[in-house]
Amino acid sequence: MAALEKLRERIAELTDLASVEMLLQWDQLVMMPAEGAAARAQQLGVLARLTHERATAEDLGAWLSELEGAGLDELDRDILRLARRDWERARRVPKELAVERAHASADGQQAWYLARAADDFSAFLPALERNVELARAYGECLAGDGESAYDALLSDYDFGLRTEELRTLFGALAQALPPLVAEAQISSPSSSIEVPVGAQQLAVAGTLRRLGVQQESWRVDVSAHPFTVWIGRADTRMTTRYLDGELESLLSSLHEFGHALYERQVDPALERTNLGRGTSMSIHESQAKLWENHVARNRAFADVLAAELGAGGFSLSPAKLHAALVGVKPSAIRVSADPLTYPLHIILRFELELALIAGELAAADLPDAWHEGMLRLLGVEVSSNALGCLQDVHWGAGSFGYFPSYGLGCLIAAQLWEAMSLELGGLEDDLRRGEVGAIKHWLGERVHRHGRRLDTTEVIEQATGRALEIDPFLHYVRPLTEPSPVA
Amino acid sequence: MAALEKLRERIAELTDLASVEMLLQWDQLVMMPAEGAAARAQQLGVLARLTHERATAEDLGAWLSELEGAGLDELDRDILRLARRDWERARRVPKELAVERAHASADGQQAWYLARAADDFSAFLPALERNVELARAYGECLAGDGESAYDALLSDYDFGLRTEELRTLFGALAQALPPLVAEAQISSPSSSIEVPVGAQQLAVAGTLRRLGVQQESWRVDVSAHPFTVWIGRADTRMTTRYLDGELESLLSSLHEFGHALYERQVDPALERTNLGRGTSMSIHESQAKLWENHVARNRAFADVLAAELGAGGFSLSPAKLHAALVGVKPSAIRVSADPLTYPLHIILRFELELALIAGELAAADLPDAWHEGMLRLLGVEVSSNALGCLQDVHWGAGSFGYFPSYGLGCLIAAQLWEAMSLELGGLEDDLRRGEVGAIKHWLGERVHRHGRRLDTTEVIEQATGRALEIDPFLHYVRPLTEPSPVA
Repeated sequence: MAALEKLRERIAELTDLASVEMLLQWDQLVMMPAEGAAARAQQLGVLARLTHERATAEDLGAWLSELEGAGLDELDRDILRLARRDWERARRVPKELAVERAHASADGQQAWYLARAADDFSAFLPALERNVELARAYGECLAGDGESAYDALLSDYDFGLRTEELRTLFGALAQALPPLVAEAQISSPSSSIEVPVGAQQLAVAGTLRRLGVQQESWRVDVSAHPFTVWIGRADTRMTTRYLDGELESLLSSLHEFGHALYERQVDPALERTNLGRGTSMSIHESQAKLWENHVARNRAFADVLAAELGAGGFSLSPAKLHAALVGVKPSAIRVSADPLTYPLHIILRFELELALIAGELAAADLPDAWHEGMLRLLGVEVSSNALGCLQDVHWGAGSFGYFPSYGLGCLIAAQLWEAMSLELGGLEDDLRRGEVGAIKHWLGERVHRHGRRLDTTEVIEQATGRALEIDPFLHYVRPLTEPSPVA
Repeated sequence: MAALEKLRERIAELTDLASVEMLLQWDQLVMMPAEGAAARAQQLGVLARLTHERATAEDLGAWLSELEGAGLDELDRDILRLARRDWERARRVPKELAVERAHASADGQQAWYLARAADDFSAFLPALERNVELARAYGECLAGDGESAYDALLSDYDFGLRTEELRTLFGALAQALPPLVAEAQISSPSSSIEVPVGAQQLAVAGTLRRLGVQQESWRVDVSAHPFTVWIGRADTRMTTRYLDGELESLLSSLHEFGHALYERQVDPALERTNLGRGTSMSIHESQAKLWENHVARNRAFADVLAAELGAGGFSLSPAKLHAALVGVKPSAIRVSADPLTYPLHIILRFELELALIAGELAAADLPDAWHEGMLRLLGVEVSSNALGCLQDVHWGAGSFGYFPSYGLGCLIAAQLWEAMSLELGGLEDDLRRGEVGAIKHWLGERVHRHGRRLDTTEVIEQATGRALEIDPFLHYVRPLTEPSPVA
């Protein structure tokens, strides 16, 4: 079947180009000399143009039409299904709009960077207005029947997810969490544990080794913001950062490990097809949050982390370490939020970006709306825009519909962990001994191996036997509000 | 003029793709986890296919035809001239032959690797025969009027260079050098200087800093074999290696610096055009050899190198260091040959590959021919094929016509150095103080800035006022045969 061969060859080419693009981005953030940036932008531009051209080409559409109704096996049917979906979505967006968005994103990030440094929202406002307008136009092009522009934006990150589901889930969370926050013993135990960088480095290396990170097929480097890329099945690169006296590196290295493991455990038969990667942003984030919240912040695993810190020359009790890793303290900043208050930061951003795209909130009114929301949801008085609505780059980069995946990731992780715990039993004993084989295997079978064959909702239902709920997450965070034995 | 814009855009795209390919190769040799190799081969394959497709496309030919005779400025005329040359050459080779050569090259490198390890020429013979046959067929496709297949192979590395010129130059060298080797005081002073790796690293870093290597736009890493890539004008990456107790790193880091400087000093107006890179392999090698032979091996510069080794905690006299860097000792191995005997290794390979491609030497008879040639040219008895005709990967990779550039590089470097010395004067005083600004400037003006606007022969004639000769090289090597004051 010539059309099928051609289709699979084109798809393989597109996946290779995507890997090349990831390598260029990794290199830029980890290895590239600073002055290489201008040439790198050109190189990335050419790759993006070639990729777009070949992903939206007429020949691909002809192969798809030829294959409709053909007697394909199950795998090829899924390949065809996703290929049609991707091809149609890519072709709905006029090239001029795609180019304009790319420029607005680059300009917006630059404007954001300067505005945040100067704590000057007005310097960011024009770029924000342009990005909102372009995101709305883009969403309108992309939207299918009965979808709003914001639905369409969401679908770029989580295909099939609807705004209404988010309203329901996040609405319930917005009711349930603030009382828990109010109950919580506010503590800042982490400030009392000053782990030197050298001990952090040894502890991170030792912990990752226990999880299966080996130099034959992994790299672990340092970058300004931790991230992970997968250049090939056996070429995984994660980064972390080490802040003197902080514990963040222990959490973020497990977070990034979760992203990496997902991609590594996709069924090898899907390699170089359009199915051979993580299915959505929220499932990806759930994998990261599972290792961050449910492993790294697990009381049992604190035994392992404390032992690794000890091997690095810094000794403290597992109980004290655990208390520092789970301490609740409402604050203005999302990225350093504790696991209980974290989703409230996301809910605020969801409400606001939804209103921006719907035209119900003017970009100029964002600082006031932010201020109000932080007070209402977190009880936090925001002292400046730099520590408020200018803290994240996403809207400056034109990414609307992205934030919800962070919150969904927390919920999905909790639901998966609950299902896994019930099914496997004895997870805490495993974690106390630093054994994660059963966890990796369960995740591989239930989530990872499917790649893009299942969308977000299907993954959750097949893995846990039910639709996404907030209760498992509430069960996870409730104990965090109780006084710690060592706090 | 739409055709010109399209042509320049396509060319810019092709240069960006070439940079991306270089980055992938650099990453593979310096950063990639070992198991990433399979995916990397796929990624490089896709880039090569896309590049070939877009470099040989009909549309490009149509733009070229439309622009013939148009009133272009001088720069665009050169762009058009090279674009036509490159397009026509690329289209002369059937796609099947290009694919077959790529496979034979990959297989041949693997066969070579195993055969060398086992010192078993017969295990390499089938791959060698296949590569010779394919190289001959490729040369015959590529050859223009009056060109032999070997001429055509040479033109891939040095456009415009003919076999007859090489016969003349290398024939004269083959007469002139052996008597000098016989006269030379055979010494092995380097074996008496055992520089630890740590001191080498500090000395290399300090020396490169003096030459202008700064972290804002350079990387210096370690790899199994030293090499240099240019990912962008301001993103240069060179590698070196440190062998315990050896001085090679001092020479090879200056060698690689020469390659790097060439690319960095091409006229910025040529960036992202088909003119914006080094013009040929022999000119490139001459830039490397100039810094290796005429700077690093200069008695005056030994003051600087000795000081840098001293700063690295290893002290020795400049005179003794210099003697170690220039000591003459005929040996079986090309890559570690001294500057006097080095070209004789190249002449042997030139004679043999010429005979292989012409069908005058059967691949099976290579070991005997090698043995005879080493005795005749260098007076060296070859003890095994592993240390004889299996020592280099080139023929295993299907690269015929490449070796001569190494020998030409030595000759061109000497002729450039002589012309520069006469014109500028006082170079040795500069070198004694570690000042290389005048050298860099002269090379930039006379050689580097032209990029591909001048071919090999024109560069030499414009820079030195005459055609390539062997006398400057003979003047350079003659003093190496005299007893060193400290030997």
